[in-house]
Amino acid sequence: MSDEETRLGELRERIDTIDDELLRLISERAECARTVAEVKQQANPDEAVAFYRPEREARVLRRIKERNPGPLADEEMARLFREVMSACLALEKPMTIAFLGPEGTFTQAAALKHFGHSVLSTPLAAIDDVFREVASGNAEYGVVPVENSTEGMINHTLDMFMSSPLKICGEVQLRIHHHLLVSPEADAASITRVYSHQQSFAQCRKWLDSHWPMLERITVSSNAEAARLASLEEGAAAIAGDMAASLYGLEIRHANIEDRPDNTTRFLIVGTEEVPVSGEDKTSILVSMRNNPGALYGLLEPFQRHGIDLTRIETRPSPNETWAYVFYIDFRGHRDEQAIQAVLGEVEAQCVEMKHLGSYPMGVL
Amino acid sequence: MSDEETRLGELRERIDTIDDELLRLISERAECARTVAEVKQQANPDEAVAFYRPEREARVLRRIKERNPGPLADEEMARLFREVMSACLALEKPMTIAFLGPEGTFTQAAALKHFGHSVLSTPLAAIDDVFREVASGNAEYGVVPVENSTEGMINHTLDMFMSSPLKICGEVQLRIHHHLLVSPEADAASITRVYSHQQSFAQCRKWLDSHWPMLERITVSSNAEAARLASLEEGAAAIAGDMAASLYGLEIRHANIEDRPDNTTRFLIVGTEEVPVSGEDKTSILVSMRNNPGALYGLLEPFQRHGIDLTRIETRPSPNETWAYVFYIDFRGHRDEQAIQAVLGEVEAQCVEMKHLGSYPMGVL
Repeated sequence: MSDEETRLGELRERIDTIDDELLRLISERAECARTVAEVKQQANPDEAVAFYRPEREARVLRRIKERNPGPLADEEMARLFREVMSACLALEKPMTIAFLGPEGTFTQAAALKHFGHSVLSTPLAAIDDVFREVASGNAEYGVVPVENSTEGMINHTLDMFMSSPLKICGEVQLRIHHHLLVSPEADAASITRVYSHQQSFAQCRKWLDSHWPMLERITVSSNAEAARLASLEEGAAAIAGDMAASLYGLEIRHANIEDRPDNTTRFLIVGTEEVPVSGEDKTSILVSMRNNPGALYGLLEPFQRHGIDLTRIETRPSPNETWAYVFYIDFRGHRDEQAIQAVLGEVEAQCVEMKHLGSYPMGVL
Repeated sequence: MSDEETRLGELRERIDTIDDELLRLISERAECARTVAEVKQQANPDEAVAFYRPEREARVLRRIKERNPGPLADEEMARLFREVMSACLALEKPMTIAFLGPEGTFTQAAALKHFGHSVLSTPLAAIDDVFREVASGNAEYGVVPVENSTEGMINHTLDMFMSSPLKICGEVQLRIHHHLLVSPEADAASITRVYSHQQSFAQCRKWLDSHWPMLERITVSSNAEAARLASLEEGAAAIAGDMAASLYGLEIRHANIEDRPDNTTRFLIVGTEEVPVSGEDKTSILVSMRNNPGALYGLLEPFQRHGIDLTRIETRPSPNETWAYVFYIDFRGHRDEQAIQAVLGEVEAQCVEMKHLGSYPMGVL
């Protein structure tokens, strides 16, 4: 045997030993998960016990990422653990997850990133349908986009919360990469224009300015449309993601051209139950105000005073007369924490109505 | 603290300890995989070394399934290991896998089942495109259906091998489940007819005979079409799979109604290199014969005499004059094994031409 073969033989033996250990440990973990379910069910024999605990999963994943020694990236390691947890959980009963379809969208990717592959995932045609499917109990959780940087369709999800009894149970951040796509036959010198959604142009402006400043930039309604045009027209390129490249058979000429490497899209997990404290949480509320001068400032002052980190505010027109304005406010912290309770009390005293949409673990990237 | 809480606390501590061990072992496994790659590259400094070894992966998965103590099902455990291997392999360079698209098809499911999720998968519109993408080196491997029990489109894949230089590097079996699907509003008593593809009817005949003997059975071109009709027409049901149910918003009234619980579809992995012996292999050959009486019998006789298990024979018309008939033959064993070499020698002596399509690990279900 050559040196190489001896070395490889040793390494493979070591891998086999590791695999035996992994097998033993994953099996023991599955037994533990099963016992957890039994203990819960015995303590509450007449109830439908929720075996999936979002706050517990978030804690496990955070821990993994903190302790990950490499060489696998944190994200990859978290993915493997998500799958292990997903498999353990499915021992009881696979969960049904409704998401904004069709298959192959970023929302499906977010659902699988969050819940792993041992779930039944149901694509639905509209955000309303996802809410309805969860509210009716046909699905345990739903996944909807809320800040989609490329398609911009967030308002409908926000508006759903005005009337829906559902709670936000989690968030998922998905890294979105943009590529410069061209037809496989295209010759670089012949490219004269590039199609994309305006948001994507904004996200890749610096790269375009420095690498392809002469390209004419043509804004279209979506990145998928941009890719479609680039696949049909000579001399055209598109800025879009992997999925659009695949769908229209385009080649990735330059990958990951977004100016900010942390370009992400945010999705919400909606469910019927509130989630306990995980330690790193966000809270979302809906506040309706009359249109008085200084109203918004007055609303935000308590957050400032209590040192609470506001992460996002959106203003929407009220759907009925009594609600002149509706503000969606996201901030760090959990409703069960004292400081948050104090702030919520003050906010409630000032507004026409306040609705708590949920306190939930911050997305583990 | 209640008894329940104490118990759960203990179990969660145990799970955390297990997770730390898993983290350590998966990281060590990744380091080993990286060292394997380095050793290979050092021994062959001027070559593009193939880090992915189908025969080695097949051996690892078989071992896992043999030793799996439960409670996780073998298939689920194999899936987790597939993902771990996929992540380790992607440390070098993520592989590109071309498959017969679009996204969301069984072929994509087969590709991800075989290669895990740490690969770039590219959906292509036609089987020819998949072969071309692999032959040109744009993708390392391709995945194409070869025995699709519901759609019946196998011939095109077989015909590709007549002209393609690609080798078969593996096979994937996917369990296919059929369901009785109805519109969510439908009332069981109002269902008078059921749509499906003829193959699916054949696969669910006994179940239909015993459970819904009075339903009129209407054959359509595909299960997706059946689901579409059932979603539009009152009083109609469909027999189709999960994906069709999701696409057309139908409800699964009865799940897994196929008569044989082992109903599977088979896919081939095609690549540019031959795969060494894994220990449980299949070989596929293409044999052209003139139309002489007893020719086929003469061809098969050596297999019988050497005790070699034929798993499949297909006859196809020859694409050119000199090939009167072309037989596709699958059998157990690897070309590097002595008995197989003996048989292949005898077969070759009798036929106009013989083409070895590949020896590859049997699919690990």
